[in-house]
Amino acid sequence: MAELSETIDKKPRRGRRKKRKDVIRRAPVGAAPGTLIADPDAHPPELTLRTLGDDGQHEVIRNVDLSDIVGARREWSKIWLDCTGLANVELVDRIGEAFGFHPLAREDVLNVGQRPKVEFHEDHVFVVLPMLDRRHEASREQVSIFFNRNYVVTFQERPGDVFDPVRKRIDAGGKRLFERDADYLAYALIDAIVDAYFPLLEDRSEEIDLIEDEVLEYAEQDQLTRMYEMRREVRQLQRTLWPMRDAIAALVRTDSDHLSDDTQRFLTDTQDHAIQLLEMSETSRDTLTGLIELHMSLASARTNEVVNLLTIVSTIFIPLGFLAGLWGMNFNPDVSPWNMPELSLYFGYPTALGLMLVVALGLIWYFRRKGWLGRD
Amino acid sequence: MAELSETIDKKPRRGRRKKRKDVIRRAPVGAAPGTLIADPDAHPPELTLRTLGDDGQHEVIRNVDLSDIVGARREWSKIWLDCTGLANVELVDRIGEAFGFHPLAREDVLNVGQRPKVEFHEDHVFVVLPMLDRRHEASREQVSIFFNRNYVVTFQERPGDVFDPVRKRIDAGGKRLFERDADYLAYALIDAIVDAYFPLLEDRSEEIDLIEDEVLEYAEQDQLTRMYEMRREVRQLQRTLWPMRDAIAALVRTDSDHLSDDTQRFLTDTQDHAIQLLEMSETSRDTLTGLIELHMSLASARTNEVVNLLTIVSTIFIPLGFLAGLWGMNFNPDVSPWNMPELSLYFGYPTALGLMLVVALGLIWYFRRKGWLGRD
Amino acid sequence: MAELSETIDKKPRRGRRKKRKDVIRRAPVGAAPGTLIADPDAHPPELTLRTLGDDGQHEVIRNVDLSDIVGARREWSKIWLDCTGLANVELVDRIGEAFGFHPLAREDVLNVGQRPKVEFHEDHVFVVLPMLDRRHEASREQVSIFFNRNYVVTFQERPGDVFDPVRKRIDAGGKRLFERDADYLAYALIDAIVDAYFPLLEDRSEEIDLIEDEVLEYAEQDQLTRMYEMRREVRQLQRTLWPMRDAIAALVRTDSDHLSDDTQRFLTDTQDHAIQLLEMSETSRDTLTGLIELHMSLASARTNEVVNLLTIVSTIFIPLGFLAGLWGMNFNPDVSPWNMPELSLYFGYPTALGLMLVVALGLIWYFRRKGWLGRD
Amino acid sequence: MAELSETIDKKPRRGRRKKRKDVIRRAPVGAAPGTLIADPDAHPPELTLRTLGDDGQHEVIRNVDLSDIVGARREWSKIWLDCTGLANVELVDRIGEAFGFHPLAREDVLNVGQRPKVEFHEDHVFVVLPMLDRRHEASREQVSIFFNRNYVVTFQERPGDVFDPVRKRIDAGGKRLFERDADYLAYALIDAIVDAYFPLLEDRSEEIDLIEDEVLEYAEQDQLTRMYEMRREVRQLQRTLWPMRDAIAALVRTDSDHLSDDTQRFLTDTQDHAIQLLEMSETSRDTLTGLIELHMSLASARTNEVVNLLTIVSTIFIPLGFLAGLWGMNFNPDVSPWNMPELSLYFGYPTALGLMLVVALGLIWYFRRKGWLGRD
Amino acid sequence: MAELSETIDKKPRRGRRKKRKDVIRRAPVGAAPGTLIADPDAHPPELTLRTLGDDGQHEVIRNVDLSDIVGARREWSKIWLDCTGLANVELVDRIGEAFGFHPLAREDVLNVGQRPKVEFHEDHVFVVLPMLDRRHEASREQVSIFFNRNYVVTFQERPGDVFDPVRKRIDAGGKRLFERDADYLAYALIDAIVDAYFPLLEDRSEEIDLIEDEVLEYAEQDQLTRMYEMRREVRQLQRTLWPMRDAIAALVRTDSDHLSDDTQRFLTDTQDHAIQLLEMSETSRDTLTGLIELHMSLASARTNEVVNLLTIVSTIFIPLGFLAGLWGMNFNPDVSPWNMPELSLYFGYPTALGLMLVVALGLIWYFRRKGWLGRD
Repeated sequence: MAELSETIDKKPRRGRRKKRKDVIRRAPVGAAPGTLIADPDAHPPELTLRTLGDDGQHEVIRNVDLSDIVGARREWSKIWLDCTGLANVELVDRIGEAFGFHPLAREDVLNVGQRPKVEFHEDHVFVVLPMLDRRHEASREQVSIFFNRNYVVTFQERPGDVFDPVRKRIDAGGKRLFERDADYLAYALIDAIVDAYFPLLEDRSEEIDLIEDEVLEYAEQDQLTRMYEMRREVRQLQRTLWPMRDAIAALVRTDSDHLSDDTQRFLTDTQDHAIQLLEMSETSRDTLTGLIELHMSLASARTNEVVNLLTIVSTIFIPLGFLAGLWGMNFNPDVSPWNMPELSLYFGYPTALGLMLVVALGLIWYFRRKGWLGRD
Repeated sequence: MAELSETIDKKPRRGRRKKRKDVIRRAPVGAAPGTLIADPDAHPPELTLRTLGDDGQHEVIRNVDLSDIVGARREWSKIWLDCTGLANVELVDRIGEAFGFHPLAREDVLNVGQRPKVEFHEDHVFVVLPMLDRRHEASREQVSIFFNRNYVVTFQERPGDVFDPVRKRIDAGGKRLFERDADYLAYALIDAIVDAYFPLLEDRSEEIDLIEDEVLEYAEQDQLTRMYEMRREVRQLQRTLWPMRDAIAALVRTDSDHLSDDTQRFLTDTQDHAIQLLEMSETSRDTLTGLIELHMSLASARTNEVVNLLTIVSTIFIPLGFLAGLWGMNFNPDVSPWNMPELSLYFGYPTALGLMLVVALGLIWYFRRKGWLGRD
Repeated sequence: MAELSETIDKKPRRGRRKKRKDVIRRAPVGAAPGTLIADPDAHPPELTLRTLGDDGQHEVIRNVDLSDIVGARREWSKIWLDCTGLANVELVDRIGEAFGFHPLAREDVLNVGQRPKVEFHEDHVFVVLPMLDRRHEASREQVSIFFNRNYVVTFQERPGDVFDPVRKRIDAGGKRLFERDADYLAYALIDAIVDAYFPLLEDRSEEIDLIEDEVLEYAEQDQLTRMYEMRREVRQLQRTLWPMRDAIAALVRTDSDHLSDDTQRFLTDTQDHAIQLLEMSETSRDTLTGLIELHMSLASARTNEVVNLLTIVSTIFIPLGFLAGLWGMNFNPDVSPWNMPELSLYFGYPTALGLMLVVALGLIWYFRRKGWLGRD
Repeated sequence: MAELSETIDKKPRRGRRKKRKDVIRRAPVGAAPGTLIADPDAHPPELTLRTLGDDGQHEVIRNVDLSDIVGARREWSKIWLDCTGLANVELVDRIGEAFGFHPLAREDVLNVGQRPKVEFHEDHVFVVLPMLDRRHEASREQVSIFFNRNYVVTFQERPGDVFDPVRKRIDAGGKRLFERDADYLAYALIDAIVDAYFPLLEDRSEEIDLIEDEVLEYAEQDQLTRMYEMRREVRQLQRTLWPMRDAIAALVRTDSDHLSDDTQRFLTDTQDHAIQLLEMSETSRDTLTGLIELHMSLASARTNEVVNLLTIVSTIFIPLGFLAGLWGMNFNPDVSPWNMPELSLYFGYPTALGLMLVVALGLIWYFRRKGWLGRD
Repeated sequence: MAELSETIDKKPRRGRRKKRKDVIRRAPVGAAPGTLIADPDAHPPELTLRTLGDDGQHEVIRNVDLSDIVGARREWSKIWLDCTGLANVELVDRIGEAFGFHPLAREDVLNVGQRPKVEFHEDHVFVVLPMLDRRHEASREQVSIFFNRNYVVTFQERPGDVFDPVRKRIDAGGKRLFERDADYLAYALIDAIVDAYFPLLEDRSEEIDLIEDEVLEYAEQDQLTRMYEMRREVRQLQRTLWPMRDAIAALVRTDSDHLSDDTQRFLTDTQDHAIQLLEMSETSRDTLTGLIELHMSLASARTNEVVNLLTIVSTIFIPLGFLAGLWGMNFNPDVSPWNMPELSLYFGYPTALGLMLVVALGLIWYFRRKGWLGRD
């Protein structure tokens, strides 16, 4: 439990995260479309160029400039230009121009927070996907991938490690990556992005299992807040996963020349994963909704039990208390034989006690008949 | 907080706004279709003509009359006729006739409150969109845009500033606006209208964040009313945004000659924004629904806690009170040894106190076993 | 308020209206299809024939018989046969035969309560629409319209005034009605039927606004019943409006020869109105659902407040009452120094009062810390 | 009311009905498909053959055997073989073979509880529909209809009277039945099956009206159970009606040679009825859901009122009771002037009463200000 | 009941089952696609080969190796290779290579927990389905079926008995299995898998019936937990059944050469069963949701009743108790004629008792008028 709450606390406050992620960074209302704007908080860009020959030969060139790129495109059969950090608007713009990307696509690279989407241009395919690099939603960043059979160009917001396995496979001379065209490399990157959502959803599943055990044991108020919080996070995740699945489906269905049939077959597998992710999130949400309802039901059942006890105790003792009060009245028996003669009876007190016992037993019998005592 | 409520108070009362906006202004039931009716509250019209040459030359002519317009159409490659205020039914009608607009389209211009829509006529495209010019829904007005590659004619209800950025770009000789045909100008206007919804939705997001913090701190009754109010406003907004997205999608999909492929590519971007707006509103609505539920749950949890305390206190003290009352009865011990002999016992009082203590401790033990004391 | 309830009371009881409207009047189960059955409560039919020439000439012939009709069809370019009241089954049947209507269509004319629909026959188009002639749903009646480019034949259940504006425009020699074929006349009638729903929905909107103000001021039980009642009425209305919209959409989309492109363009406007009606009803339903929830929430919040007060008062005074009862016991101090010695202390009474004060203040401090006093 | 409960009691217990109806009778898991299994509770079969000539001539032959059928098919232009009771598996199988029905279709005839469906075979059309022969769901049985233009073969589970009107029309020499091919006869049977649902739904509507009146008068616990029960029944009915409508729609849309255009036109009417049934059931379900909610709301409103009274009475009298207890304490005034000197004041008692009155009036004023007294 | 809870207890804990079933076993994030990974808990594989000649001749060879398989494919017209247990990754891989299965398909065989799906490859059809071999969801395992007209290859996780009936029909020389191609054998296996879900759903239906009877008799807290648990299980089942139905529908619709029209006709029957299963699960879920609501409603109705009693008793006896306390006060009548003169009245006590009786009767009359006594 302690571990769990830590995980939760480490997450930045929802309010802030929201501003960071949900609200698309836009040029001012009415600005010319395609205007490139800089984000003051953006990371400084790092350009890494990976060149791959069909024979397993490859080079890694860090901090390349534009002329290096132009040279590499001529020399190598496929290249991967990997740009992390979007602070330098002009650099992104010039790379875009060099590869012939549409101005609006270049704008989308910079205005992070775009919905997942695929655009088929004449010369290349443009894919925008949200990427997690750690096990929580707050690490989400936008990856923009431009590719055709000759090159892959990726832009991401921050240095992150989701692409590391692909890099390692390149360094290890992974056969498939070298034998196929650059579109297969793009597939491998997209696959890595999609699969990075599994750990997050598995974490959520485990948290939900924990909470469920707690709710069944004892329904407490802060569980409610946590469950609502978590359900909203899952909902938010689904909003990301739906268009992501659609974007990948568009890649699978298209007959663009930039994607070989073979790569599309592999993308089918990624599409299966995306659907699996959606179903896991759907299950999480369902379970949470059910748990919230169950929590409310159990809390309400408990209150009913409490009210039941209150009623039984009050209903028995309030009349008895009245009787005791009655015989505690100070009407003067000396003045008149009508004034509380029972107080001076020989068996007055035992009779009174007996009467009280009869009332109490009668009420208990009534409650038993009603079935209200069965619940204690 | 104070600031927030001010924002809310400044908005006109819902009832009045509704009448103003939801109810389409119609000709009397059964009137001949296409009947143009004047709205007594409408603004007097102001006609402004902007002429744009391909070489960046342009003119702004205010308070033009019909003959000016005819002349300008002959002389300039593209013109923008900007009409604000719909009080002069005849003027609107004559402009419509001059440009060859369909009678029903002219009727739609005047009967504000139309749903967002696109109609492809032989000679031009007719678009109706609701426009915000300030950050609340009450500032909504209808903009009717007629355009083809040669002209753009816009009608709006009140003078407003959403188009100002476009006007400035014209005055600044914005390259794209002069190089392209008038359909691009229409796109720029539509884009400005759509983007004007972002500030409203961002305001709502922030308000919701504020309310969320409040609800988590302390659930109060007036938060409920505010959240219901806000949820309805968001719902209303969605009703506007759905057909707006459809209208823009129709513009993107059409193969009308009045829209160049290039402009349609730009409209795709506007379409993305419209979808983004819808998702933001969807998120707002979801969050509000979740918050209302959470509010109810927390309030109910709090009542449970209160009832719990009531039960514990009553269940302990009502029986004790009965015992005290019992020994406060006035049965006469002098009359009979059966009458309350315990009152005269040497250790009667301490025994009675001890008995009460035993009852109280027994009940507390019972509550502890039930787990009801854990909640205090 | 008084006015409002009057409006509501004037409406016939729901139970009766339901029987009248929802349950289709059918031939006995298993009867031969196309069997024409008479409704004993039906109005006696009135046949009115309006003949229209292209040059604005027209005649109105009341109480025509079949031979008149045949003559008029030969003589005039377009005619409108207007039949109000369906008591004479044979007459309807003979008119149907004279114009060549399908037996099942003739059955639909008589078995009122049909769903709105359009059927395209070889020779004509058959439209069934529900018509309101006053501002409440109980005035609903079925209108059956048969038309092609030469004639319009309408059957309705009762004499009503929705078509009056069209009649007036004919009498006034309305240009459009005379210049175009009879399908335009059919359009004008359909438009009149659709527009007659606006006043009803506007009335409901206003009622809802009134109720909303009441709910926000004070949530009362009878508001609940009214809101449920109204929501059901709106839902019922939607059931009428959905197929109505579909029927009109079918008229707009069809390429039947009986409808000119020009008339279809006009029907697009009617379709817009139908969609508008649906959205208004959707908004009403949403608002009512929200108000019902808000009502429940406010009532529940109020109960929480009441229970809170009960708890505070009981929790403070029941222990104090116990203490008072304790010192009201009659243990005999004369018998033993252990029996209630505090009663004979010099400062016994003030100390007891002080103790009570301490208990009370302690509990108040506890409640204040819990934040329960903040709500009063 | 007594009448109503009788109607309800007459229905078999839900549990049993469910087993009878919802669970398809299947061959053991893994058995060869097309295995025909006998139901031990099935009715013994009765075979009736109706032969129809085009000239109105017809014969009714009861208890026919297979050779009779073969002869009749040669001799007459159309025949109807009517089999009630499915106990004789072999007989059904042999009839199926004689007419050339697919083995799986024959299996469907015997394994009752199939979903409504239509299958278009090369030689005939196969329709499965659930039939009611009395006004409650428990009388549901499966009717299997095989037909083409020459014959109709029907299998049903029990002798029932839904087809009686059709039989009577044959006996009366009904013109349409004799003039048309056998597919029209199939239509007449399907129409009879569909129309038999109207009385059930009308009964439910009336019951709901009754319950509604009761709920509005006084919300009781057993109404809840009844409404839930009824809503489930209606839901169950909808599960039957949805695929039934789809099956009929498939018959209307198909261009199979076994159905003439004329018959399809008539089936459109049946389709309208099926949609009408669905809408009636939808209305019933809606109304029930609304009523259940209203019931809960009213019960909750009533509890609020009760708790309100409890609070008012307790809050007034518990403090007063404490004061009375206070002055009933036995501190000894003789020991000290500090001990309860007020008891010996000249106006002590009236002052005390006055104080109590002030407290009570103060609380009443507080409640009035809060608006809590307005509800009594 | 005891029996029932046993059934429930035998099921493994939800938490564990979930980990086992819902979470797809995946290669590490970023691993090369098509990587085959071993599951340490997997069963050791058993290979059984069944060869079938068209003339009813067949052989069963256990523990075959790859060379046997290659021989059998040459010799026999159709073979079924049945592999249970997936521990030997290499073996699965080599079988896959021998038959020419796609690497990703081979990966799917090993990474159990795939969604039900169908893939049409050039050379064969690949089907993944979840299989139950006992009457609870925890026995779910993945079956992978590769087939064309010559062979069927099945992989499953554990030895199970769902295929036993098919094996028996082979041993018994079942005609249909020998006369048709291997695709019919594949159909028979798929049919067995689908039908194995019926017992589970029938068990759930019966459990729900039992719970319903209990809920109607007495609403208890643990029923709630059980119903939520069961509803989630049913929901989970639906998630399996939806894609299963879609997969079978794809087999029915495809025009792949590997499936004969005849087999597709049989698969239509399996499709019907899958739809039936979905409807049964839908009914179960609906019933459970209705029951949970009913449970809550009844519990709430019961609490209302309890609170009602509490209110009546408290409201009657608290004022009476106050009166008794009043006349128990010790104001000194000797000091002043104003101090409690009523105590010394001749009829003081009877008058006081009478007054109390009047108050009690008055309150009872008030409750009766309010209708609150009618509920006891």
